[in-house]
Amino acid sequence: MKAVRVHEYHSDPKIDDIPEPTLTGPLDVIIKIGGAGVCRTDLHIIEGQWAPIQNPDLPYVIGHENAGWVHAIGEGVTNVAVGDTVILHPQPSCGLCSACRAGRDMQCVNAFFPGLSNNDGGMAEYLRTTARACVKLKPETNPADVAALADAGLTAYHAVRKSVPHLYPGTTAVVQGAGGLGHIGIQTLAALTATRIVVVDRNPEALALAKEIGADETVLADGTHIDAVKDLTNGEGANVVFDFVAEGGAENDAWAMTAGAGYQFVIGYGGELTIPTLDFVAGEKNVIGNIVGTYSDLEELMVLAQAGKVTLHTKQYPLDAALDALHDLDAGRVRGRAILVP
Amino acid sequence: MKAVRVHEYHSDPKIDDIPEPTLTGPLDVIIKIGGAGVCRTDLHIIEGQWAPIQNPDLPYVIGHENAGWVHAIGEGVTNVAVGDTVILHPQPSCGLCSACRAGRDMQCVNAFFPGLSNNDGGMAEYLRTTARACVKLKPETNPADVAALADAGLTAYHAVRKSVPHLYPGTTAVVQGAGGLGHIGIQTLAALTATRIVVVDRNPEALALAKEIGADETVLADGTHIDAVKDLTNGEGANVVFDFVAEGGAENDAWAMTAGAGYQFVIGYGGELTIPTLDFVAGEKNVIGNIVGTYSDLEELMVLAQAGKVTLHTKQYPLDAALDALHDLDAGRVRGRAILVP
Amino acid sequence: MKAVRVHEYHSDPKIDDIPEPTLTGPLDVIIKIGGAGVCRTDLHIIEGQWAPIQNPDLPYVIGHENAGWVHAIGEGVTNVAVGDTVILHPQPSCGLCSACRAGRDMQCVNAFFPGLSNNDGGMAEYLRTTARACVKLKPETNPADVAALADAGLTAYHAVRKSVPHLYPGTTAVVQGAGGLGHIGIQTLAALTATRIVVVDRNPEALALAKEIGADETVLADGTHIDAVKDLTNGEGANVVFDFVAEGGAENDAWAMTAGAGYQFVIGYGGELTIPTLDFVAGEKNVIGNIVGTYSDLEELMVLAQAGKVTLHTKQYPLDAALDALHDLDAGRVRGRAILVP
Amino acid sequence: MKAVRVHEYHSDPKIDDIPEPTLTGPLDVIIKIGGAGVCRTDLHIIEGQWAPIQNPDLPYVIGHENAGWVHAIGEGVTNVAVGDTVILHPQPSCGLCSACRAGRDMQCVNAFFPGLSNNDGGMAEYLRTTARACVKLKPETNPADVAALADAGLTAYHAVRKSVPHLYPGTTAVVQGAGGLGHIGIQTLAALTATRIVVVDRNPEALALAKEIGADETVLADGTHIDAVKDLTNGEGANVVFDFVAEGGAENDAWAMTAGAGYQFVIGYGGELTIPTLDFVAGEKNVIGNIVGTYSDLEELMVLAQAGKVTLHTKQYPLDAALDALHDLDAGRVRGRAILVP
Repeated sequence: MKAVRVHEYHSDPKIDDIPEPTLTGPLDVIIKIGGAGVCRTDLHIIEGQWAPIQNPDLPYVIGHENAGWVHAIGEGVTNVAVGDTVILHPQPSCGLCSACRAGRDMQCVNAFFPGLSNNDGGMAEYLRTTARACVKLKPETNPADVAALADAGLTAYHAVRKSVPHLYPGTTAVVQGAGGLGHIGIQTLAALTATRIVVVDRNPEALALAKEIGADETVLADGTHIDAVKDLTNGEGANVVFDFVAEGGAENDAWAMTAGAGYQFVIGYGGELTIPTLDFVAGEKNVIGNIVGTYSDLEELMVLAQAGKVTLHTKQYPLDAALDALHDLDAGRVRGRAILVP
Repeated sequence: MKAVRVHEYHSDPKIDDIPEPTLTGPLDVIIKIGGAGVCRTDLHIIEGQWAPIQNPDLPYVIGHENAGWVHAIGEGVTNVAVGDTVILHPQPSCGLCSACRAGRDMQCVNAFFPGLSNNDGGMAEYLRTTARACVKLKPETNPADVAALADAGLTAYHAVRKSVPHLYPGTTAVVQGAGGLGHIGIQTLAALTATRIVVVDRNPEALALAKEIGADETVLADGTHIDAVKDLTNGEGANVVFDFVAEGGAENDAWAMTAGAGYQFVIGYGGELTIPTLDFVAGEKNVIGNIVGTYSDLEELMVLAQAGKVTLHTKQYPLDAALDALHDLDAGRVRGRAILVP
Repeated sequence: MKAVRVHEYHSDPKIDDIPEPTLTGPLDVIIKIGGAGVCRTDLHIIEGQWAPIQNPDLPYVIGHENAGWVHAIGEGVTNVAVGDTVILHPQPSCGLCSACRAGRDMQCVNAFFPGLSNNDGGMAEYLRTTARACVKLKPETNPADVAALADAGLTAYHAVRKSVPHLYPGTTAVVQGAGGLGHIGIQTLAALTATRIVVVDRNPEALALAKEIGADETVLADGTHIDAVKDLTNGEGANVVFDFVAEGGAENDAWAMTAGAGYQFVIGYGGELTIPTLDFVAGEKNVIGNIVGTYSDLEELMVLAQAGKVTLHTKQYPLDAALDALHDLDAGRVRGRAILVP
Repeated sequence: MKAVRVHEYHSDPKIDDIPEPTLTGPLDVIIKIGGAGVCRTDLHIIEGQWAPIQNPDLPYVIGHENAGWVHAIGEGVTNVAVGDTVILHPQPSCGLCSACRAGRDMQCVNAFFPGLSNNDGGMAEYLRTTARACVKLKPETNPADVAALADAGLTAYHAVRKSVPHLYPGTTAVVQGAGGLGHIGIQTLAALTATRIVVVDRNPEALALAKEIGADETVLADGTHIDAVKDLTNGEGANVVFDFVAEGGAENDAWAMTAGAGYQFVIGYGGELTIPTLDFVAGEKNVIGNIVGTYSDLEELMVLAQAGKVTLHTKQYPLDAALDALHDLDAGRVRGRAILVP
């Protein structure tokens, strides 16, 4: 089959012809890929940034946002059957450790991450994953339409889902960063809560789009945005600030925009939070870390996606054009999400 | 191996010599039994009460409260190894359905119940279960000491665990029925909360024992117990009433002892609740159903048990004396819990 | 001032000319009424049904769904000023008992209920209440548009608000009874959750309206509705059933429509629930009582109402035409809610 | 009456003879002081550290940890009567703002703080507070025994109370700093949870005392304490770390001792947290701010205190010896808490 493989860091991947993956364990599932999202993390892999962390043997197939159809199943698989349309949780979990038993897949001690850890990913015709990664979709769902929700969307959904108890009517939520994750965050907020949604971004076009998909107010991040958010909230700040940027100083802006007794949700990364402990005490304020969502989160997000409540702008490329997609992403030429379709 | 099998209903089981169970699936685990609890449900099985519900093929091995050591494991098992000391969740779950993924094992759509459903149980030298039923214990734990916590104890723990948010200091909890489950309930309440514990029972000896294991107050169920509970609570009733009886009118007493905005937890069964809807509205009162606990509940209960915070009175019988144990239980001659030790 | 007073039970109230109420305590607030809802409870008061419970001295002014403008305030009032537009929580609470301190106004041990308890209500030009009943509205809000949300709307909101944690995407909620409270319930569900909303009612017109305001599915209550709900939910029933009827057998239908591990919310009343305790245990099902909402609930509901997310059909009558309004209500001639405007 | 007043910063307060306070508003309460705690904050006030924040008019009476007996009540007071034994929440709240209505007294927009803000405190024979500060005690309770729980104890209780959902059996909690607040924290943890309690402190004597009051493990903060905590937790860290120090680098140690998906509770202050946003994301870790507790928290803490589950070491001084108490505290000669008794 064809597959996009990284052979050496700092070089373009190659489209190789390699054997199809086969079942190796009782819970294995082979997926015929219908769509594989192209993510900024793929660029980072190619640049070698993940090498010291995940240390995969090269060459290997990248691609960690995958959806498609079940092609083969191991003997212990009971939740999907050959032919089912599925989206894949990016991180197959073991199902047996304490974290898994409590529904916290992301803390599974035996998880792996195809396309990132030392396991082939989904920019290929077929992918090996496990039963625990498969979320069944309606048969008519087009995998290419939802694939990018498997990781980026799931992360945004997870953060918003955790915040629901704090966002009753009368509250204000700030979404800092209206890019791919932010868009999912805005739509999820609108679907799950009746909070007022204020979107902060440097890009006026991103703000215009935010308005279309659920933002009640938009604020240009031009240096006066902290004051602007305070003006919108009687000087108090927002009850929850979702920081999808979290670098370049945005992370400390997020803290400044958070109201007393409020919550700063960190979703992006790259920066450093610096906060006097007195500020935590005096304001009784909180900082909440967020990672990719649970399997149940992905099931829920798929309900919203299949009901049309959460949608993604995508641009499809044939698998053979994977390098075009990667180059377009790197050059900022992709609006929404690039998707490879084998 | 030796095994206690029901051959026909309304007759004593027999001690048979049958083949040891073998691995049949990748997640199967064979347990060398160290202790098997003898439960009133076993008497009900023999009386045929479960036949129309579970419809097992006879003969079959009973025994659903089991602990022991891992004897063999399937190829997909990663959480236990041969030789580990374990206690078994009574209801192996699939790990793949939505309920399992959310940590709600009891609502698993593929679960089975060895010793109750059409699967051999643990009154034998060996038992086949699955990896998802195994909770690892400290190597030195004696399985016979904890086996009865696998079902009866787990049920009591689950109900108390759910009530913790309601039982802050200053509240009152009533435990109605200070038998086997009630004892675990009292000890769990004392370990997990600082609520005031009021125990209601018909038996003065049971009340005396309740005092020793954590009851703050005891009330004899002599017909004046509703008033007695009200007297102890400024006329308001208890914030939570755990009804381990739930038959013979006790279930409606439990409602009468529940304060406004309070919770009646139904754990026992056999009776019928009859409540005007106005009483739910005027008092904003609630009735909460309870079934056996989750895998995580069993892990937590084992932490308490191994720390000596929850203990059970047991009487051990050799496996060959299973009929004696069953007869003793039926005749009310067992104080605490009878345990078969192969 | 003019006021609608009950002089004797089973007779029409009279429009009397009585002195305006005056401040009697430091937290008292006098309201100039802008709108007073006419509720079925007012008919029950006139019929004497509430006499044995509330035992008011006759004659007295009825009317417990009130909104208007602040006319005078006691010396201890800090939350509203003369001229403010306000809606009134129906049950002024003391603010000092333990229930009040925890935000549970409805369990206040010192609360009263103007227009129901022995205190004059709001079918008049002026009403005496307290600071703790006043929720400030935008100055431009027309009190007559929102008055009926003060009690009926608040009750529906409270129940839905409590259910939010159970109604994540992928769940199903049934609203049984699409009358006044049910309409608020449907709109609140649509605003606060992404659950699927199934409305059950005997009246096809009510179902048609339900569709317009947020129902995803409607089911005619023609005797096959339990099966219809099961068919919509893979045979499982709904995760939450809001029973706004709760009489005439509907209350037991609600239980039958509730899924395993689900919740029946009792909001209406009049009937009697009869449930074997085994059914609570086997299904781990729950019954939740509901009373009128908290002050915070009313604040939140007003956010939704002022944003146009929750609306009420109303028919306005001048205060002088109070008897027409009561007679129209009694005769079933009021669509939505009758509102008296002084 | 006699009162301890600050006349100028950086000088000893004086014992003055001043008029007794009188009722000025309908919810006012005059307390005959039975015990007033001497707190490190009092030293900070004298040093002028609070001047720029609270800016009180000098001279004024300090003392913000007070208990005693009700001496006089305003016309609107319904929760206490003259003669009642009471402990005082340090921050009387208005009862009318949204925060108060939700039970979050600490976020009251109209609160004041006698002995800290521009209002006389309790190092005197009498104190003016309001009804909303009064928690009624058993008549026989000695105010001097519990006074210091009013602020320091309440703060520790509040933090622990919030953490209860995270601290089920099998978890580990670290208490960093076994001083006055830490002692209350340890006892509260032991009363409200079955978590394993690990106490970290620089002082071996403090650790020895910690063992007596509930610590399961103690760790000397000698530079190897992060590793020691990891060793106790399979390398993972603690599920919750209560940081009662939060300065001098302890705040960053606390983060390092917190497990993935865990919570760092900031209670002390003085230092600065510096954390890469990636660390929040990768570990899904959280930092929770904490301020003084709610009124309900104080009610609950008094239940524990009156049941003997939470106790404080105190050293009593006559009011005339206030300077001795302050000097002893400053010189580190007070074990437990100094209490002034008029």
